[in-house]
This record gives sequence, structure tokens and C-alpha cells, in this order.
Amino acid sequence: MVRKLTIAYRGRAYSGWQRQNNALTVQEVLENAVGELAGKRLAVVGASRTDAGVHARGQVAHVAGAERLPDRAMVHGVNRLLPEDVRVLAAETVAEDFHARKHARSKLYSYRLVRAEVLSPLEALYAVRVDPGIDVQAMSQACSGLIGEHDFTAFALAGGSHRSSRRTILRAAFEERSDAVVFSVTGDGFLRGMVRSLVGTLLEVGSGQRSPDGLRALLEGAPREAAGPTAPARGLILERVDY
Amino acid sequence: MVRKLTIAYRGRAYSGWQRQNNALTVQEVLENAVGELAGKRLAVVGASRTDAGVHARGQVAHVAGAERLPDRAMVHGVNRLLPEDVRVLAAETVAEDFHARKHARSKLYSYRLVRAEVLSPLEALYAVRVDPGIDVQAMSQACSGLIGEHDFTAFALAGGSHRSSRRTILRAAFEERSDAVVFSVTGDGFLRGMVRSLVGTLLEVGSGQRSPDGLRALLEGAPREAAGPTAPARGLILERVDY
Repeated sequence: MVRKLTIAYRGRAYSGWQRQNNALTVQEVLENAVGELAGKRLAVVGASRTDAGVHARGQVAHVAGAERLPDRAMVHGVNRLLPEDVRVLAAETVAEDFHARKHARSKLYSYRLVRAEVLSPLEALYAVRVDPGIDVQAMSQACSGLIGEHDFTAFALAGGSHRSSRRTILRAAFEERSDAVVFSVTGDGFLRGMVRSLVGTLLEVGSGQRSPDGLRALLEGAPREAAGPTAPARGLILERVDY
Repeated sequence: MVRKLTIAYRGRAYSGWQRQNNALTVQEVLENAVGELAGKRLAVVGASRTDAGVHARGQVAHVAGAERLPDRAMVHGVNRLLPEDVRVLAAETVAEDFHARKHARSKLYSYRLVRAEVLSPLEALYAVRVDPGIDVQAMSQACSGLIGEHDFTAFALAGGSHRSSRRTILRAAFEERSDAVVFSVTGDGFLRGMVRSLVGTLLEVGSGQRSPDGLRALLEGAPREAAGPTAPARGLILERVDY
């Protein structure tokens, strides 16, 4: 019996999703809670290995072997054992061969930028500040060049476990919402740190340091140092995973 | 010389705005930061004595006596000395007789309710969960009865320092935003715990325990126990103060 879990978390207190020695991760607290409830150690396999500090509104994971726990216990029972910054939003029984990571067709990430002189503490946990004068039109223009299949080596942090640096971006856009600008990107997969490096580079376009067309030249295997800096983790949210 | 400050904070770590012995408050951390920068102890007088755990997006305060600090230092200099959950958003020089509390004409509070089976941790710091089936129309109907001047004794927590329990509500409404329902209320002033008691009582209307018309009977000096419970502080935000 295999369960699909939808999970949300604030990433601030965690060294990312993936279990590590000597660092607290979201996978570890979930496996501890599920294991305590099931009475045995069970693996919780996530769709996305979100980095340290990155949030999730719709991470997906699968768990096999919790036959005796009904779906309801996988939500409310597990939540009672979790720290308050991690929650199982939903659980459903799926096909025996379901694999959260291998079967994911696309993932949607968002990155929130707030145009302000001073970032409000009510925004600061899930956003970064940008200059109010930032050129969103130029960033939108640069964005459109991302669509399609490219080699994203220039946007990958070291330490990822990817065989290929080619990924397909299905949609990428900036949306303006009163004082905030939200970057949304959907792709078939993302290299380590890729969304944040894209945001860091797009911000250089927005501040006039880089031309909107300059991004295209980076999309066929340019080295990491050709692109812009990696934007902070706290602005990034894994919104959803589709199958 | 008198300065008007606009201040935002996450209330979670604080025992409210007003300075207390043996409990950390927002006023205290602000007075410490301003005092350190000015080289002398200065009072920071807030418009609203927000309760423990209540947030502010637009608290207003005044400070007299910081002649040597330019407006810019009152923002960026003070922010460098503040904990990350409190920020001065703006500072301006105002008339010598300006008093943040006494001259406030109206205050706008918002309270965020999220319709969900499980509250996402990304929402949980600034909202409370409500049943997805809650009757927002009934709550809106009850709401309209609040407009005008009434005796809000039924909605006041003990411990406030108010001479009269009469207040005028200028506007009160529920706004639906995807999965969230936001209660906004503007008044010339609020008793201690008043917005949260209103929300707790309106939620009883929304769940069918109280009729929409039942609220009116509480508005002419009914005792506290006639109204509903006090909703949790974390859903409440002081949005703005007008002069």
C-alpha cells in the first residue's frame, strides 16, 4: 500500500528536505512522526529536494508500508507529532508503483519580491526586498527566453546529483500584486539552486546591469560564473508538483 | 522636534506593545534602539496598545527629543539595532503637538481566517483555521449591524484602561480571497480584545450557533459572557492608523 502525501512547511529551521547527518531536515521530522505512528521505520520519499531555508506549499511525498494507518491518521495523527512548521495537508492511497520523485511531470515554484524601502517583518519570512524602481517589464521580457529546453549549467549550484543539466521550462512569468512582484516558473525539473540563480540573474536585468536578451546566451551551457548571484532561500516556495 | 514613526512587527514574540515589567514588549525594544542611537532615553508613544501576539503592519508612534537624528537615521539606524521582527518603515517630522494616540482619528484592523481542513504552516503565523463550510454570508450580515456608535462592554477584556465602553465603528466587512476570508474593521477606537471578541462572536454566527441578528442585542452594554470567545491573537493585524 502506497500513500501520496501533500506537505507544506516553513523552511527556515531546516537544512532542506533531504535527510542529512548532523543537520535537521524536513524528511527527518516527517519520517520520525510517521514512524512513531506506524510503529516501524518507514521512508518518506519527496518529489523535490528543496534546499536549506526553502518553503513548500505543496511538496509531494510517498510512503509505502503504513497499511494499518487510515488516510485520516496519516494527516491528523502525523500532524500531532510534527513540529508546528511542518504539516501534512492531505493523504491519499495511490497505485502501488507511485513514486513521488520519478513520476513527477512538472513542478511550480514561486519567488516573492517586495518593492519597498524597508521590508515589513510580516513579509520578511517569505520574500526579499527589491528597489521600488526595479524594471519588471525588462525582467518579464528576459523571462520569455527561458521557455523551452535548455542547458542550465549556468544556473546550477555545485552538489546536485543530476546526470544532465538540460531541463524544460514550460512557463515563466512575473505577476505584479500591489507592492509585490511574484516570479512563477514551471518546469519538468530543476537543478540545485536553479530557481534562485534565475531570480538573481533576472534581478540584474531589473536593475539595468544586464540586458533582457543577455539571458539567452547563458542557456546553452555557460559556466556558473556567467550568470548572476543566487537569490536568498526565504523568497522561494515549492507551490505544487503535478503528475 | 517630534517624529512620527510608522512601525511593523510580528507580534508572536512580544507581550504586546505597551512596556511592562518582566515581559518583552515592542515599545521596549523600540525605546532601547532609539535610546541607543540618540544617546539618551526617549519615550516612543504608540497609537494602539496591541495585545500579546497581535501583529502590526502600520502601527504609528511618536518620539520627541531626537533632534540630532535625521529622519533617515530614525529608519535605517534604528532598524539596525532592532530585532528582525520589528521594523520602522518610515519617519517624518510632524507638528510639535502631535500625539500618536490622542490624535488618532481611526484605526483599521484585519483578521485572517483560512478555510481549510489543515492550516498550512505558511499561513499559520498570521491566520486561524476555520471550517471550509463556514457561512460567510451570515457573518457579513451580522457585521453590518456593527456600524455606528455602540456600547461594546460585551466585547471588552478586563484590564483595559478605558473610561467609556462606547465606540464608533465606521466600517466592518468580510472579504473573500481564494481560500481566505478577511475581516476588516475600522473604528474611532477599540476596547481591549474587542476585535478578537467580535471575530469569536461572528464565527459563532458563521457556524450557525448564533443568528446574524443576535449580535445587535449585545451592542448596548450586554455583559462579556453574553458574547462569543476571544479569537486567537495571531490572526489579528493592526493595518493602519489615520489622523
